[in-house]
Amino acid sequence: MVESNQKLQTAFCIIGSGPAAHTAAIYAARAELSPILFEGWMANGIAAEKFRQQSLRFGTKIFSETVERVDLSKRPFKVHTEEREVEADTLLIATGAVAKRLNFKGADESEEGFWNKGISACAVCDGAAPIFRSRPLAVIGGGDSAMEEAIFLTKFGSVVYIIHRRDAFRASKIMQKRVAENPKIKVLWNSVVTEAVGNTKGLVGGIRVKNVLTGESSLVDVSGLFFAIGHEPATKFLDGQLETDAEGYIITKPGTTQTSVSGVFAAGDVQDKKWRQAITSAGTGCMAALEAEHFLQEHKEALNLRFQG
Amino acid sequence: MVESNQKLQTAFCIIGSGPAAHTAAIYAARAELSPILFEGWMANGIAAEKFRQQSLRFGTKIFSETVERVDLSKRPFKVHTEEREVEADTLLIATGAVAKRLNFKGADESEEGFWNKGISACAVCDGAAPIFRSRPLAVIGGGDSAMEEAIFLTKFGSVVYIIHRRDAFRASKIMQKRVAENPKIKVLWNSVVTEAVGNTKGLVGGIRVKNVLTGESSLVDVSGLFFAIGHEPATKFLDGQLETDAEGYIITKPGTTQTSVSGVFAAGDVQDKKWRQAITSAGTGCMAALEAEHFLQEHKEALNLRFQG
Repeated sequence: MVESNQKLQTAFCIIGSGPAAHTAAIYAARAELSPILFEGWMANGIAAEKFRQQSLRFGTKIFSETVERVDLSKRPFKVHTEEREVEADTLLIATGAVAKRLNFKGADESEEGFWNKGISACAVCDGAAPIFRSRPLAVIGGGDSAMEEAIFLTKFGSVVYIIHRRDAFRASKIMQKRVAENPKIKVLWNSVVTEAVGNTKGLVGGIRVKNVLTGESSLVDVSGLFFAIGHEPATKFLDGQLETDAEGYIITKPGTTQTSVSGVFAAGDVQDKKWRQAITSAGTGCMAALEAEHFLQEHKEALNLRFQG
Repeated sequence: MVESNQKLQTAFCIIGSGPAAHTAAIYAARAELSPILFEGWMANGIAAEKFRQQSLRFGTKIFSETVERVDLSKRPFKVHTEEREVEADTLLIATGAVAKRLNFKGADESEEGFWNKGISACAVCDGAAPIFRSRPLAVIGGGDSAMEEAIFLTKFGSVVYIIHRRDAFRASKIMQKRVAENPKIKVLWNSVVTEAVGNTKGLVGGIRVKNVLTGESSLVDVSGLFFAIGHEPATKFLDGQLETDAEGYIITKPGTTQTSVSGVFAAGDVQDKKWRQAITSAGTGCMAALEAEHFLQEHKEALNLRFQG
């Protein structure tokens, strides 16, 4: 492969920095596809560094650059960052989805904020933590996820508030029924959180809840606050070149990671609204690498033997 | 829950000992389902012990007993081992599939045999090992998997023999074409392996190959031998109570782990002929636990509140 520093070629280019991206990288590198991975300049995460080291060890080239745009209209596909351009025979989109957060006072990641100190966007991930046991908890949201998270949290909390800015949920009837029947759940209608306040340990100790109809504000004693107001898949940089659903999630053929453009695969939360777990993401990353390898084998001649496998 | 030692009750019973079983156990235990896991008395595996410790730490009850039969005709389901009976509101089958092996001289796991010393049943798992680099390798089989494994192994080996007992492959036309066009693959038709012989390092150094038409035998220099003669899912103990395909693989609804009996889930290789990787198995184990939890929530009343979640 002829390569200048700014212009690279690869059989398999991965965009992403989570379990799907790195699992794909490890499998692709083991299959000698010499993958290139763009993790973005903001890449981070608890498990990320271990994953990253393994990808590197198996031979993945990693750039901490953010992909600004791709061109899927011609082959090889083109991937552009500010610093360079990559030509890729196959491409994996594993850019994930970000849980939406609210920006009231005390919700941030600063030293004064309580993000990850009692405030979380994932009840399934964090709900079992000791600081939430037998304590009042709160969930913000009104959809099925919010109902599910609230029910899940009743296993741990003494009471679970659902805080919703309207006077009705958009959740399904059955989920609303289950919430209504659960004695540990209390709904605070027409309400928004305006502030999180700390306890003596520097963790969340309460939230200020404002009724949007009356304007009345009160301090509610909670040790945990969970955002369940939806996720946003990171697909804007694709500029409509792949088929997505109304929310922007990439559509894959059932049981595969194949997108609407052959040779382009999607894995992890960017194509998964349902499971969203690190381990399910990793599973689809593995699938994507195996599918990319098959694709390359099948199209070897057409791809001008750029793929050396 | 009322429990004698021989008669136990659980919301979630898991049968299996691999990544799917233990991932499900960890998720279910975290969700306070108090799962019971039957790993069988033969459970083993490289990663198994780490997984097992994690399952135990999260609160899974593990029995090293083999499940002899289940009764899915009534609820709660019944799971029988020689030692005890478990009543379970939901059940996960994660018993896996065993790669078929051949039993010629030198193929066994004894000190004199070369199993895992150059003989393997998984090219994708083991093919990249240093002992196979630039060495002649051999694959036994005639289906798509055998073709795929042989092509995969050409990345590493100097030459790859496909040894097939008949004069034609049952693999698809396209896979046969790819094999025929690959200069590194040589097919030995009408041939069977009768013996594996060692090198000075105690690893496979060659195989004795017999032509079944002429009866002629020759020693072929190989450093690796891969069985690709299919897998057998461990579903016999189900005695036809779940829908399976002709080969015995449990059929699950696409994108889920749901079987033909509601409340019974299947994860891992026992329901997957395509991916068969530890990480994809683990992903479906996670899905199964989340689906079981949903099922239990939905059927709480009908299940007489045995489920305490």
